Amino acid sequence: MHQQTVLEQPLLKLAQWTEGVERSALQQMLMRASGPDVISFALGLPAPELFPGREFSEAVVSVLTSQALALQYGPPFLPLKSHIVSLMRRRGVDCTEDMVFLTSGAQQGMSLVARLLLDSGSEVVLEECAYTGFQQILQPYSPRLLTVGTDLETGLDVDALERLFTRGCRPALVYAISDGHNPFGVSMDLAKRKALVNLAERFGVPILEDDAYGLIQYEDYPIPPLRSFNDELVFYVGSFSKILAPALRVGWIIVPKGLNDLFSIVKEAADIDTSTLSQRSIAAYIDLFDLGAHIKTLSQVYRQRRDTLLQALNTYLGPRARWSKPRSGLFMWVEVADLLDSAKLLARSLEKEKVAFIPGSAFAVNGGSLGRNALRLNFSNSPPDLIDEGIRRLARLLP
Amino acid sequence: MHQQTVLEQPLLKLAQWTEGVERSALQQMLMRASGPDVISFALGLPAPELFPGREFSEAVVSVLTSQALALQYGPPFLPLKSHIVSLMRRRGVDCTEDMVFLTSGAQQGMSLVARLLLDSGSEVVLEECAYTGFQQILQPYSPRLLTVGTDLETGLDVDALERLFTRGCRPALVYAISDGHNPFGVSMDLAKRKALVNLAERFGVPILEDDAYGLIQYEDYPIPPLRSFNDELVFYVGSFSKILAPALRVGWIIVPKGLNDLFSIVKEAADIDTSTLSQRSIAAYIDLFDLGAHIKTLSQVYRQRRDTLLQALNTYLGPRARWSKPRSGLFMWVEVADLLDSAKLLARSLEKEKVAFIPGSAFAVNGGSLGRNALRLNFSNSPPDLIDEGIRRLARLLP
Repeated sequence: MHQQTVLEQPLLKLAQWTEGVERSALQQMLMRASGPDVISFALGLPAPELFPGREFSEAVVSVLTSQALALQYGPPFLPLKSHIVSLMRRRGVDCTEDMVFLTSGAQQGMSLVARLLLDSGSEVVLEECAYTGFQQILQPYSPRLLTVGTDLETGLDVDALERLFTRGCRPALVYAISDGHNPFGVSMDLAKRKALVNLAERFGVPILEDDAYGLIQYEDYPIPPLRSFNDELVFYVGSFSKILAPALRVGWIIVPKGLNDLFSIVKEAADIDTSTLSQRSIAAYIDLFDLGAHIKTLSQVYRQRRDTLLQALNTYLGPRARWSKPRSGLFMWVEVADLLDSAKLLARSLEKEKVAFIPGSAFAVNGGSLGRNALRLNFSNSPPDLIDEGIRRLARLLP
Repeated sequence: MHQQTVLEQPLLKLAQWTEGVERSALQQMLMRASGPDVISFALGLPAPELFPGREFSEAVVSVLTSQALALQYGPPFLPLKSHIVSLMRRRGVDCTEDMVFLTSGAQQGMSLVARLLLDSGSEVVLEECAYTGFQQILQPYSPRLLTVGTDLETGLDVDALERLFTRGCRPALVYAISDGHNPFGVSMDLAKRKALVNLAERFGVPILEDDAYGLIQYEDYPIPPLRSFNDELVFYVGSFSKILAPALRVGWIIVPKGLNDLFSIVKEAADIDTSTLSQRSIAAYIDLFDLGAHIKTLSQVYRQRRDTLLQALNTYLGPRARWSKPRSGLFMWVEVADLLDSAKLLARSLEKEKVAFIPGSAFAVNGGSLGRNALRLNFSNSPPDLIDEGIRRLARLLP
């Protein structure tokens, strides 16, 4: 056993999917560019000045001083599930506590759904540009990615999806963001939502509905999510990150019936349980304060920032570009006529104008060319004067 | 698109690995048996009366009132990494901040290591009885599980591992708990640790060292972990769950060089980041209070409980059984002569004596027969008088 023939360079063999994976140049560029002198439209960050720090602090203290088990491992906290049932009702979805599965944020929710639905090499349908975090979830499964287009005013191309299905494609899941699409900033119209659910039912294909932004709405009549039309095939994923604070790492899945036990198994494998302290503190915050009023405040402030951004684009870019008009969420998608490579624009923009954004091409699925003439702009994380100034600077660099 | 041929019962097709998976009868039995009148040796829970609730509350408030970004998404918090470097030094491991990768608890740490090392169908080496949470991590990979034995006094059978390797087996990883083994309650002796690392080096096989318990030590001279002998092949996983509180969901991996970027990718895919608030609150707690003294208190209290359990086993079971004598951790393994089925014993024990434990067979890898005559007893979660009373009751049911 103590033989001393040590191999010269033992090779650490990693899983196959890791071959060729590396952090993108984009991420490295953005990390260098996060200084305080940069006006950033890049990340999907909520406005930190609106975090209810004092109120949440009060909620945590009330939990830690009165609930002996707040620091222990624990089962999902039922009063929090009840609050989520109320939130979902506000969102137009009828559900009960037993359909609410608590997760460490929406990202984990989607990661657990993938674990239950995907085999290695499974087919998955996404839009041609899609949330990079979901693409990262898919990567280890080496899936076959099929794409459908997106209309900036009405959302996912449901007709294209129907053509895929009628040609025989039966993907393991369709990924959809009905409200405040990331990166396109569009909300699907009602007819398309109904048609999409109808398709899923006809062909027995599950839908992962990523609703991380859907409780932030800018128009008077929000459209109900896909989950409101079907409770057997739609895995709805929600989160407290955008309506309360990301650092709490609490989200939820509204799961189809009969899948709770399987979700418990993959959740335990992933990280045992969702922080008991976070769960109880959020429930206490909702008991002690008015989450509804807080969401209303967030929506008003973000709507104002959205309007400032729309105005600035109109003023400084005008007919050189077209953009989505978000009714929900944190992002706007701007396509610039004659712009050849938004990634190169970013490098120049950081260097010359100290303005950051995400080039549309960063979201392209299958290395497609969509988005090379586009920018994804976040409008929740900067005050109106900086939004205006940032677009004014950006416009100088555009063709 | 609006054609109305709805399929009668669209079948929700899940990933292949889920076939045949179900929650065990054991878990259901234990869930029913968690009432306050039950003396429980079952779960691996820390003693809630020792949680520093007041101090931690102070730390959270100090963070929430002084750090504007405490509720935001955020990069790993460097001061917390520095504290972990100090903890690792106390544990006998020299490392630097850039080797510390923060996770949402040790379970997530292991789950991320599996993601980076395992392909579907990979070979993995475990002991014949192994932590069920790690077996749950492995399940979706449909791995080929190879097992080696365990000695209750010296730990993992390194000679058996060498025989596997020399026969040509090159597993994707070897899973090892050097200190306070779950479920066996044994710590590997020094010679075996060195031999195990030596084997890993000779054959280029990575080791996942699960050290969730290693900072809780009952003897004066703890043995250094595997990671102290090798920093290229040992993925060391640690946690604040047992030394501070599980509800914070913060753990760490000490990663081999060059793997930080890949870990960042799988971490982002899993749940974006580890709670900024938890990270900063733990760092503040360590700044404001004495974590070393707290760990010392925990070790003293748990050692007393271990001694009470050893004494009770001696008194009530005597020569009918043999058991491990833990120098670390929360568990003891008790093998009872002439006991045929500890799972049946549990059912009777819950019904007649209101005593809970985990039957050894629950940990058996590959459905092996090991553990049918054994009980895993936790000693951290009950005060000494209940430990004594629980064993007194259990003894009545034993052959």
